[in-house]
Amino acid sequence: MRQDQPGFDDLMTPSLLLDAAKMARNIERLTAQARRLGVTLRPHLKTAKSINVARCLFGGETGPITVSTLAEAEAFHAAGYADILYAVGIAPQKLTRVQKLRAMGCDLVVILDSQAQAKAVAEAGVPALIEIDSDGHRGGLLSDDPALVEIGRILHANGVLRGVMTHAGESYTVRGKAAHAKFAEQERLAAVDAADALRNAGLCCSVVSVGSTPTAHAARDLSGVTELRAGVYMFFDLVMTGIDVCSIDDIALSVLTTVIGHQPARGWVMIDAGWMAMSRDRGTAAQDVDQGFGIVCDASGRVMEDLIVSAANQEHGIVALRPGAEGPLPDLPVGTYLRILPNHACATAAQHDRYNVLHAQNGHMETWHRFGGW
Amino acid sequence: MRQDQPGFDDLMTPSLLLDAAKMARNIERLTAQARRLGVTLRPHLKTAKSINVARCLFGGETGPITVSTLAEAEAFHAAGYADILYAVGIAPQKLTRVQKLRAMGCDLVVILDSQAQAKAVAEAGVPALIEIDSDGHRGGLLSDDPALVEIGRILHANGVLRGVMTHAGESYTVRGKAAHAKFAEQERLAAVDAADALRNAGLCCSVVSVGSTPTAHAARDLSGVTELRAGVYMFFDLVMTGIDVCSIDDIALSVLTTVIGHQPARGWVMIDAGWMAMSRDRGTAAQDVDQGFGIVCDASGRVMEDLIVSAANQEHGIVALRPGAEGPLPDLPVGTYLRILPNHACATAAQHDRYNVLHAQNGHMETWHRFGGW
Repeated sequence: MRQDQPGFDDLMTPSLLLDAAKMARNIERLTAQARRLGVTLRPHLKTAKSINVARCLFGGETGPITVSTLAEAEAFHAAGYADILYAVGIAPQKLTRVQKLRAMGCDLVVILDSQAQAKAVAEAGVPALIEIDSDGHRGGLLSDDPALVEIGRILHANGVLRGVMTHAGESYTVRGKAAHAKFAEQERLAAVDAADALRNAGLCCSVVSVGSTPTAHAARDLSGVTELRAGVYMFFDLVMTGIDVCSIDDIALSVLTTVIGHQPARGWVMIDAGWMAMSRDRGTAAQDVDQGFGIVCDASGRVMEDLIVSAANQEHGIVALRPGAEGPLPDLPVGTYLRILPNHACATAAQHDRYNVLHAQNGHMETWHRFGGW
Repeated sequence: MRQDQPGFDDLMTPSLLLDAAKMARNIERLTAQARRLGVTLRPHLKTAKSINVARCLFGGETGPITVSTLAEAEAFHAAGYADILYAVGIAPQKLTRVQKLRAMGCDLVVILDSQAQAKAVAEAGVPALIEIDSDGHRGGLLSDDPALVEIGRILHANGVLRGVMTHAGESYTVRGKAAHAKFAEQERLAAVDAADALRNAGLCCSVVSVGSTPTAHAARDLSGVTELRAGVYMFFDLVMTGIDVCSIDDIALSVLTTVIGHQPARGWVMIDAGWMAMSRDRGTAAQDVDQGFGIVCDASGRVMEDLIVSAANQEHGIVALRPGAEGPLPDLPVGTYLRILPNHACATAAQHDRYNVLHAQNGHMETWHRFGGW
């Protein structure tokens, strides 16, 4: 930004800010990585939930995307996205809504890991990927589970078997590119083994889908994989910084806040960004460096040494020095604007209904709508 | 509820449910307590953020309310509420918006604890309460701080000194009525002492406002206090249960969810309510009983022994037996509806844009809009 406070007086605080140049750089980084690896990138829009952000992913065009809710699927389909993976295990009750979107021309694909779901999906004529468990993190079948082929047969018999997918959620718990590369290879092997098991049983398996933000950036070889998924990479956050997937300077999202008071005896500066604005996410608490509810920057986005949001109530944040840091606390009079970098972009963005987008080139600010709900 | 699943098939999961009869009982309980104590009840609507809920507070009429954002003040004023306390330290930049509401006939009062704020507020002609620190929890001046009278003089000279207010946020950290009664007395003493200090200096102080949900229910005597504030009492939650302010059966809010999978080897049932539906609030983690991301009930709201949401991703929850509990896990096929009681009603409600209201009398369901933002 050229100016310290471009139009901030027109915003109410707390407000969500998005640095367009940083986002563009983050998007280009993973786009190039997918190109290098020879796989399709299918960005996960659960973090962004914004048509404007989606438009930045494919150079202004549409493309294949991943979503976490049917509300997202409907919103993105209405905006022209017609190749969508709904990457949360399907509840049979939701199939009517899925069918409606498919009838409108949306190639919406669901995921599942049980015979009960496979039967419901087969009956509804909805294509599916079988979820594979590559790291014990969440749902999915092991690639050598005999149930995999049984489920595959149910889907195949009804012409709705598209392939397999996996997500290494556990990669978030380890630090560094080498560790993430191991998880990437684990994702690849689990998905490719599962695809082979299906093919060896004479079943088709055209899609082999893997990904998480850490593994997507660290993967060295994705032989046998057809597509890569990741979501938070567009914005990044302190959790990703804490495991070395990005630097603090890559974080495109921040919350603008105003100083509203002081408790000098306790070393506190009170701000109007509490957990309602930041979310209750304390994802860095288990990392090497606990960032509280976020790192404090000045209004221009420059990190203020050793200053974090140490505690939060609903609409109050407490800014203080990091434990062990030497003061003094900088002078931050009532009315001062600050920007807070979030622990977890998905959770913080979800607390807001719009992005206030900062364009470095011309210093102007734009409002992009974001949606929520299910 | 008469039926186990009243119209749930018309809802998408996850969905926020509100039990109207329990809410009415909770509202009546604190209304009676304020009546007994001889003080005005000024409910805090930061939890509910709903005109329909507000209508239940005063028997269908309007009344004095507290809010945590100017967006709430505007929405409630538009619905006829004209006596509003905005109980977050005022940022000078927000005074124009406050003045607009006041010019429309809303008696909107702000709070502050510094001379800088007092000068801005005096200049804007906006009435204010001085925030008093009764327990070291957050903002406010000690009642014997000389700055109190100095700030009082600035406000008084401009005819905008209304009184004092305090909030015992630390009362949430102790358990049992006796402990909460001590905090209630601490709130009362701090506020009354501050009011006396102002009056002894010849300044007017008509409002003496105290309150938090634990202290409001435990207070035995509120001599010298004019009004009582509380918010989460309308719905209650597991944090309030954990400190004995209410029972589990009083919790009026729950999240309806659907079973979407199983990991039998790990003792997991996967549901479609993750932290997006429950919030990241882990308020019971520091209490005697950690309830994970919430207690699991069947579709009718009956608590399922020892079953909690042990972990949550964005749109996935993991239901498991409480640590140390003996199994077996109940049989919960894919598609089963469950209801989750939340740790923190304010945080969970904020993740949703509507209440699906269950009326016990006639078994029908109503939709009440709720709003967010600032």
